[in-house]
Amino acid sequence: MTATDLDSRVRAYGHEIFARLDRSGPTPLTRAWVDDQLMGLTMDNPALKVQLFRFVDCLPYLHDPVDISRHLREYLGEARDQLPWWARLGVKFLPKGGLGGRLLAAAARSNAEKMARKFIAGSNVQEAVDAVERLRTQKLAFTVDLLGEATITEAEADHVQKQYFDLIDGLTREVNTWPEIPEIDRDDRGPIPRVNVSVKLSALFSQFDPIDPKGTGRAVAARLRPILSMARRTGAFVNFDMEQYSFKDTTLQIFRDLLSEPEFRDWPDVGIAIQVYLTDTEHDLEQLLDWAKNTRKCPVWVRLVKGAYWDYETVIAAQNHWPVPVFTEKWQSDVNFERLSRFLLTNYAWLVPAFGSHNIRSISHAMAVAEELKVPSRRYEFQMLYGMADPIKDVLTSLGRRIRIYTPYGQLLPGMAYLVRRLLENTSNDSFLRQGFAEGVSEEVLLRNPSESSFVIRPSSFEKSTMHSVNGQAGSSHTGGRMTTDETRFQNEPLADFSRAESRAKMRAALDAVKAQFGRSYPPVIDNKPVASSHWLDSVNPSHTKEVIGRAGMATVDQANAAVASAVKAFDSWRDTPVAERAAFLRKVADGFRTRRWELSAWIVYEVGKPWREADADVAEAIDFCDYYAAEMRKLDAPQHRDVPGEGNAYFYEPRGVAVVIAPWNFPLAILAGMTTAALVAGNTVVMKPAEQSTVVGAKFMEVLIEAGLPPGVCNFLPGVGEEIGPTLTTHPDVALIAFTGSLKVALAINESAAKTPGGQNLVKKVIAEMGGKNAVIVDSDADLDEAVKGTVDSAFGYAGQKCSAGSRAIVVGGIYDQFLARVVEATKSLTVAPATDPGCSLGPVIDAESRDRIKRFIEAGKKDATLAVQADVGKLAEEGYFVGPTVFADVPETAAIAQEEIFGPVLSVIKAKNLDDALRIANGVKYALTGGVFSRSPENIAKVKKRFRVGNLYVNRKCTGALVDRQPFGGFKLSGIGSKAGGPDYLLQFLLPRTVTENTLRRGFAPETA
Amino acid sequence: MTATDLDSRVRAYGHEIFARLDRSGPTPLTRAWVDDQLMGLTMDNPALKVQLFRFVDCLPYLHDPVDISRHLREYLGEARDQLPWWARLGVKFLPKGGLGGRLLAAAARSNAEKMARKFIAGSNVQEAVDAVERLRTQKLAFTVDLLGEATITEAEADHVQKQYFDLIDGLTREVNTWPEIPEIDRDDRGPIPRVNVSVKLSALFSQFDPIDPKGTGRAVAARLRPILSMARRTGAFVNFDMEQYSFKDTTLQIFRDLLSEPEFRDWPDVGIAIQVYLTDTEHDLEQLLDWAKNTRKCPVWVRLVKGAYWDYETVIAAQNHWPVPVFTEKWQSDVNFERLSRFLLTNYAWLVPAFGSHNIRSISHAMAVAEELKVPSRRYEFQMLYGMADPIKDVLTSLGRRIRIYTPYGQLLPGMAYLVRRLLENTSNDSFLRQGFAEGVSEEVLLRNPSESSFVIRPSSFEKSTMHSVNGQAGSSHTGGRMTTDETRFQNEPLADFSRAESRAKMRAALDAVKAQFGRSYPPVIDNKPVASSHWLDSVNPSHTKEVIGRAGMATVDQANAAVASAVKAFDSWRDTPVAERAAFLRKVADGFRTRRWELSAWIVYEVGKPWREADADVAEAIDFCDYYAAEMRKLDAPQHRDVPGEGNAYFYEPRGVAVVIAPWNFPLAILAGMTTAALVAGNTVVMKPAEQSTVVGAKFMEVLIEAGLPPGVCNFLPGVGEEIGPTLTTHPDVALIAFTGSLKVALAINESAAKTPGGQNLVKKVIAEMGGKNAVIVDSDADLDEAVKGTVDSAFGYAGQKCSAGSRAIVVGGIYDQFLARVVEATKSLTVAPATDPGCSLGPVIDAESRDRIKRFIEAGKKDATLAVQADVGKLAEEGYFVGPTVFADVPETAAIAQEEIFGPVLSVIKAKNLDDALRIANGVKYALTGGVFSRSPENIAKVKKRFRVGNLYVNRKCTGALVDRQPFGGFKLSGIGSKAGGPDYLLQFLLPRTVTENTLRRGFAPETA
Repeated sequence: MTATDLDSRVRAYGHEIFARLDRSGPTPLTRAWVDDQLMGLTMDNPALKVQLFRFVDCLPYLHDPVDISRHLREYLGEARDQLPWWARLGVKFLPKGGLGGRLLAAAARSNAEKMARKFIAGSNVQEAVDAVERLRTQKLAFTVDLLGEATITEAEADHVQKQYFDLIDGLTREVNTWPEIPEIDRDDRGPIPRVNVSVKLSALFSQFDPIDPKGTGRAVAARLRPILSMARRTGAFVNFDMEQYSFKDTTLQIFRDLLSEPEFRDWPDVGIAIQVYLTDTEHDLEQLLDWAKNTRKCPVWVRLVKGAYWDYETVIAAQNHWPVPVFTEKWQSDVNFERLSRFLLTNYAWLVPAFGSHNIRSISHAMAVAEELKVPSRRYEFQMLYGMADPIKDVLTSLGRRIRIYTPYGQLLPGMAYLVRRLLENTSNDSFLRQGFAEGVSEEVLLRNPSESSFVIRPSSFEKSTMHSVNGQAGSSHTGGRMTTDETRFQNEPLADFSRAESRAKMRAALDAVKAQFGRSYPPVIDNKPVASSHWLDSVNPSHTKEVIGRAGMATVDQANAAVASAVKAFDSWRDTPVAERAAFLRKVADGFRTRRWELSAWIVYEVGKPWREADADVAEAIDFCDYYAAEMRKLDAPQHRDVPGEGNAYFYEPRGVAVVIAPWNFPLAILAGMTTAALVAGNTVVMKPAEQSTVVGAKFMEVLIEAGLPPGVCNFLPGVGEEIGPTLTTHPDVALIAFTGSLKVALAINESAAKTPGGQNLVKKVIAEMGGKNAVIVDSDADLDEAVKGTVDSAFGYAGQKCSAGSRAIVVGGIYDQFLARVVEATKSLTVAPATDPGCSLGPVIDAESRDRIKRFIEAGKKDATLAVQADVGKLAEEGYFVGPTVFADVPETAAIAQEEIFGPVLSVIKAKNLDDALRIANGVKYALTGGVFSRSPENIAKVKKRFRVGNLYVNRKCTGALVDRQPFGGFKLSGIGSKAGGPDYLLQFLLPRTVTENTLRRGFAPETA
Repeated sequence: MTATDLDSRVRAYGHEIFARLDRSGPTPLTRAWVDDQLMGLTMDNPALKVQLFRFVDCLPYLHDPVDISRHLREYLGEARDQLPWWARLGVKFLPKGGLGGRLLAAAARSNAEKMARKFIAGSNVQEAVDAVERLRTQKLAFTVDLLGEATITEAEADHVQKQYFDLIDGLTREVNTWPEIPEIDRDDRGPIPRVNVSVKLSALFSQFDPIDPKGTGRAVAARLRPILSMARRTGAFVNFDMEQYSFKDTTLQIFRDLLSEPEFRDWPDVGIAIQVYLTDTEHDLEQLLDWAKNTRKCPVWVRLVKGAYWDYETVIAAQNHWPVPVFTEKWQSDVNFERLSRFLLTNYAWLVPAFGSHNIRSISHAMAVAEELKVPSRRYEFQMLYGMADPIKDVLTSLGRRIRIYTPYGQLLPGMAYLVRRLLENTSNDSFLRQGFAEGVSEEVLLRNPSESSFVIRPSSFEKSTMHSVNGQAGSSHTGGRMTTDETRFQNEPLADFSRAESRAKMRAALDAVKAQFGRSYPPVIDNKPVASSHWLDSVNPSHTKEVIGRAGMATVDQANAAVASAVKAFDSWRDTPVAERAAFLRKVADGFRTRRWELSAWIVYEVGKPWREADADVAEAIDFCDYYAAEMRKLDAPQHRDVPGEGNAYFYEPRGVAVVIAPWNFPLAILAGMTTAALVAGNTVVMKPAEQSTVVGAKFMEVLIEAGLPPGVCNFLPGVGEEIGPTLTTHPDVALIAFTGSLKVALAINESAAKTPGGQNLVKKVIAEMGGKNAVIVDSDADLDEAVKGTVDSAFGYAGQKCSAGSRAIVVGGIYDQFLARVVEATKSLTVAPATDPGCSLGPVIDAESRDRIKRFIEAGKKDATLAVQADVGKLAEEGYFVGPTVFADVPETAAIAQEEIFGPVLSVIKAKNLDDALRIANGVKYALTGGVFSRSPENIAKVKKRFRVGNLYVNRKCTGALVDRQPFGGFKLSGIGSKAGGPDYLLQFLLPRTVTENTLRRGFAPETA
């Protein structure tokens, strides 16, 4: 059949469907129906849509009518400026409380519930059974989906498993007793399972993470295998749902692995969903075909869908500067759907097609191609969503087609996420249903071949071509392309995407390569030359303390003085080096980091026990600091002019002199490199002291500096014991600036001693210090618990709580406390404590024995002051390394030591607050002000927290760690910091002195016009 | 005669002149002639023109051929980018030394001398006599002008007087013996003086200053009277030249006063130049007519000229935001010339016309109007410049007109200023001569009525309408117009123009009004309420110590604590006050200053002994601080966003808390207001401690704050003794920030004690401090001595040296030392030491007895270390107030106390340097780095000094004091300052803390597009 012929057939099918379709009544998605649901307005108003859907999203959490009407008011209030005048008035007069408020709340809730019931079949197995019974009376097959909260604890994963048991058991027990309906219970060859269940793999393992496909696969399989066994035993079909892109490869892997197992390899009643909006789907289908045909030798079903995470995927890609995995234009997905429909229909013997679409063009296309390829019409089926596109279902049924309805059931509360996704889909501009039913777009347009839209050239491939190569995609070379772009622009270095096999392989190779280099010596380096060291310190792997990473030469006081003298000597020439050259030097250092990226990450994993992803982020942040400070310094290099006729005035900056950089071990590369490169690009020369615990990573940084062409003396590497050489450095009369990151105690001591200006010292020292935090995450009563629990656990236990930004207090408002605490405790128990080298490690060791002992003392003290909710046992890991099990205290008094002091370990204090004001009071009631977080879905509460939770970095509805250079300049005040934020627009100013030069250009009464 | 008829006559005269004119030969100002002089290129190249003229300007100072060729290379090198390629090549290959260099130097010098000789008649009286003799042979009359250096010492003024005696004597002795030439020695009624001399009044008094017309008039008259007597006695004519606009009224006043004296009132042989480019000339002529006709009853001559200071006047006006006194378009001056020609010809009986112009249109117009009014053609004359427009002179002579040649004579060296002015004039685009001779513009165009150009609308009156009213011009009202303009824009407040009688009258009135308020009491003010004081301190007038300005209540330690508590209490609400409101408050404070401007200046004059002009600048600077910080805070108020899809990131600022402001007495309003308003607009609350010596001015500032609507507690006024309450304030645990300006010793003590962070103090204090300076002015060997001497003296002795910015060291390079020292000594002797209330005061008292005694100790020490060059005697002023005579030490060793320590008094150390590198080493060889200056005419040396003289504020070819807010942000480093520059773009940041708020806007996989 020619393409034109095919297209005629497609149109013919399409027109036939349209002809039978009743598009006039108030069926779902006609404008009238939408209006009923208060949703009509949102179609033309994106801001209002967001607000209303957000309201619907949090509605189930709201119990008090006052609370409901308050949220409605707040959400609509935020969108006010975009509402028509009559709606603005309406918002203004929304009742706040009293009878009006109660009525409003009841109406809102009942409307939302009504909407939910359109799309969700019921809240328990029996209701699901009733629903599918109703569907079958309409000759509609079904597949049941279990709606649920995100699985963030192993207990929840167990519960999900049990629900599947109950579901399969409950359904098969009943449905199989019902009379056969041949139209849906048979294909062209015979009976097919009546009971059909869809499963989401991420629901079956709380630590589902593509960074560790093996561990994840093992855990998922352990829970899924009994489900599959039961299904096979009872004659049910199981379909693997597909979730976000990053889970795709792991999901496919688990699907293939499990169904290759002897028990399941000849079982045909299994399928998997494949998303055509992904650009690499065709490749996946080819692999799947090859596996089914050649390895498994037994067919599987493929549910072809467009994909429901488009917004999420594009946002995540944009946020990470990763390639966008989805087609950016709807028509591209439609084209792909047709291409892959043909692929499936061509290979229907091995990949049994199920077309999941409401798009009449896509459906007609599948029918026409099937006809062309002579695929029996009952060998494939169509699938549609419960509550949607019912008229189309009716038509297809009347045409004798088999339609399977994706039928979600579950609690209204967790189901809201599903509901909101459906609402978004329906009101999207690109939605076929919206266009076809609500907008009244013509049949001709709706049935047009989507590839006809392809002449519109869109820059959809642009983002890919500018990607960095860390994740293996093609991109511009780092040194080549970069220099021609604007030197004042900055873009964050993308993090490694560990869902990619290539990234994981590189990390493993680097870990191996680095291990082979253990045991080398790293002496101080002055004037670019190593200097003799008499005192050596072993750097050990905190995950395996028997492993000695390397030997660090500790500098003497004489060497400290020599390092300062070297920096003094190098200063004049470095100061006079043009900023463009100093900035180019930083770019070279960044390129050095890129070249040695995996190696440096591996050193970090080994030396400070940091898990893969965070070690990679450490290197990426170091790269960011170089690029950012280079760009910022280029900006500052341009003098600010205030010229007037006859007088030129220029305001510009010069470096301060010799800077001493004293860095911590917890970001052994990023913070050391950040402080050092800031000082350097500003024109200062540096004496750089890494932490004793991370000297080897410091030495690697020094290698990168020298490889990048560091002139001798401009930066001297001075590992050493703080107590021994610290005072020499910080009180040296030639030291103009001290940049320190570390403990409060040391920072205050440095600040105090540096402020003494003895006679003969012709400068007042500048101190920049980043100290600790006692950061709190406020959990509001309407918080999304899935996010709040995960965000709190991540904040508290990321890198074993050894970040200044760690959220070590959770302050929970009122009613949500018990629920929150229970899930946090379970989520904590579910964490994978492991050596940092293990990709599945969610919590590694702490840095050293001193740290471990200090944390344990805090835990002991906590047991006296509060209720120990959980202290995970680390088992025999305790013998291997410095492991401390993640610990949660409940009902912590706000004044307890564990609620006031920085612990710098995996200890979370959960504190109850009466209300948000109380929470804010508690949150602010510590001596630190570094980071903070809040989880809330009340626009007004969020605004209040933004204003009144006074910390350096506040995070709304996400974890309170992981600040990115430029995007989230980092640092706090009170006793958390002296100076301005690292990676922010004012940071470099601290390393500079402003000067003004005024030139009188009026001579003999005459001034040049160009002055 | 109708206008049209007149115009025909004008054209007829014009065409006749042109017809007789030979425009073809290489006479001066044809292109060929200019090319000969290497000047042709400059006509099309403004940058090159400036460079070449600057070279010519400094050439006479250069003796060494190497020096000459170096300067030529440097000047041309700076213009390189604007040269054609062949000229660039030429510059590149200019010889540096050797024979080539010597030849180049000789050629440059000889060319310049040749040029100079075209315009300057000779270098001594005999050469002048010879020149006028030559002129007379061509039937040209003359008026001789004495070229000279600027008169900056009384010795120079005496010398000028003597030169006039010699000139008049020499000329009359010879010229009067020569045969009469009736064409030039007679008018229509009889003989007129053959000898004609022009005098510049400013040459006759070194302290010529329109702020004190009486004093200036007295001094000028004392030297001019004998000259006039001699002229009258010997039959010579004396013409008063007109200089810059600010001298005009004083010059006219002196002219009228002297010539109203009995000895001269019936003497007709006197005249005055009147500049038609000034917009108020007509008024001046009317006054002159009225005086000559009705008071003096004897005619005077008026030389009508266009005016030679156009560039200077527009630049000065623009720099000061003063109304531009000149017409901004050339044609407007031409129109005015014609209008005022008619005025003179109408009143020729009283104002005898002399038309000073080379413009054939202007000349023809005068002839036509004279004809119309029937003025005898010999009753008026034309005047032209020596060496210029010679063909026109020939034509007019041949037409029987009387032409008088303005004939300068004098040393080549000081004459260069005159030469450069002539060169500029000739090469200006608007120049009639350039257009007529070099450009070949047609006769029709050249003879066009200038008022025909008037249809071109130019915004020439714009600047006037936006003026502030301090100087009495109309302008927008302060509060009304301002608020509608961009709130982030800033413009310096214009200083009072004391050349305006109105300004002087207002100042006098304010001094009287304030005096009536002496003796009041000024207690501390906490929570906007005065508090009881038990310890009172008298504030006395340092010019007259018997005068008690007021009584200041000294705060107790308890009151200091209460003030901090008040500020703590007020903080939350002030912090939460929108920035727009806080900025508006500052604008109101600025308006309060404007309203009370003269009164505040008067208080400053009285309380701290600051002369008028500097007291006014103090208030203007306080206004600037308010407006500038208000504008800057508006800029900082806009959060910096780094939004990505699904994530909003905002970086913004918040205040630190309670700020303690400790201010000095030397800028009793500006610095106090600057530090305080910066803290306030940033949202901090303030405890404000003025210096003990300037409590009353501080109290006035507090009044202004309260009048502007200061909320209680937001700023508390806490006068007191530093030693008593200082430590309480600076170590108070609730004080977040200390802004201090004062002595190094106190600053370091504050810095040290503030850096202690005791337990329970949950913040690390921020200290901003502006300390002292030991500022140097480098005088290069090619410096323009007129400017260097004046600039050095102004820098050293302004406000009796009591500015941190004062230039207390002059470091003089090699050969110029003796010449410089001699003039500095004489200039110092010439200063008018007087009470600050006296408008003629160039040096008032120092602040108090302690200060006086300290300065005297330094002087005594200096006498041991160096050579006392001058110590002015203050006579009986010493009994009246705290007067110290201005003192200059010569041959000061760079290590002497007077060359190293800040004296804060009128003491200047002159230090000899071997060369510029040596000068830079000495200049940088002190513990301070605040301000500095350099006088040089070597582009490369200027560049070197800009780079290597490392001070906060460097001034090239002007005094090193008088920094303006925004234009010259002020402050230094080393031991001169902690923190960033006041009045600069980074200042407010110090009062602020940055915060970042990150909001995850991705919910349920969906992010609003508007995130």
